[in-house]
Amino acid sequence: MEPDFTKNNGLLPAIVQDAGSGRVLMLAYMNRTAWEKTLQTGKAHFWSRSRQKLWLKGEQSGHVQIIREIFLDCDRDTILLKVEQVGGAACHTGYRTCFHRRVAGDRLDPVGSRVFDPEKVYRK
Amino acid sequence: MEPDFTKNNGLLPAIVQDAGSGRVLMLAYMNRTAWEKTLQTGKAHFWSRSRQKLWLKGEQSGHVQIIREIFLDCDRDTILLKVEQVGGAACHTGYRTCFHRRVAGDRLDPVGSRVFDPEKVYRK
Repeated sequence: MEPDFTKNNGLLPAIVQDAGSGRVLMLAYMNRTAWEKTLQTGKAHFWSRSRQKLWLKGEQSGHVQIIREIFLDCDRDTILLKVEQVGGAACHTGYRTCFHRRVAGDRLDPVGSRVFDPEKVYRK
Repeated sequence: MEPDFTKNNGLLPAIVQDAGSGRVLMLAYMNRTAWEKTLQTGKAHFWSRSRQKLWLKGEQSGHVQIIREIFLDCDRDTILLKVEQVGGAACHTGYRTCFHRRVAGDRLDPVGSRVFDPEKVYRK
């Protein structure tokens, strides 16, 4: 039993959740290759839609995501990864989660603070 | 500041998380109309891709999702809703979460138990 890659042109959303805190960290997309690499290596792999290539999350920063558990939804067209986030932050901006802005009327309020400085981690 | 509906043909994934337990309940899709209805009513609305219509989650079962907080990700192309799930179960199968099957090798192991009987709730 595996995800249904006949749907969504073979590109399924994968929700990444911190196994410890329960915080939702990010959403990315998996094709069959990313799924298989994730199972084989125990590290989250995705398909980068912007770069059109297989993407080991953390390949540049070292902040990989160690797989603890994987769940499929009732339609098998969405994947939920429970992970240990190496480095403590999933977002390339340095925040723990990509969802670090809360909707407050017409504004977005930042929540939390940076765990790392992206300029140092990505050596821009 | 709102989601970037110029992306993904105006249909953005929305992750629904239980505000109390932190459990990830489901993923569905929002267009601008669903987004606006959600903000106006405080209840989660989505765009049903299978039925091609606006969908108030729980419109048939009564198991609506009361919005507690909304977050946008760093790209503003994914939405995170923290909700109170009326009825205690988000999945149409009667489970608390649509992610009630854990990947275990080649198998899917059911996790948890049904909160309601779908045959009674949906009167099929």
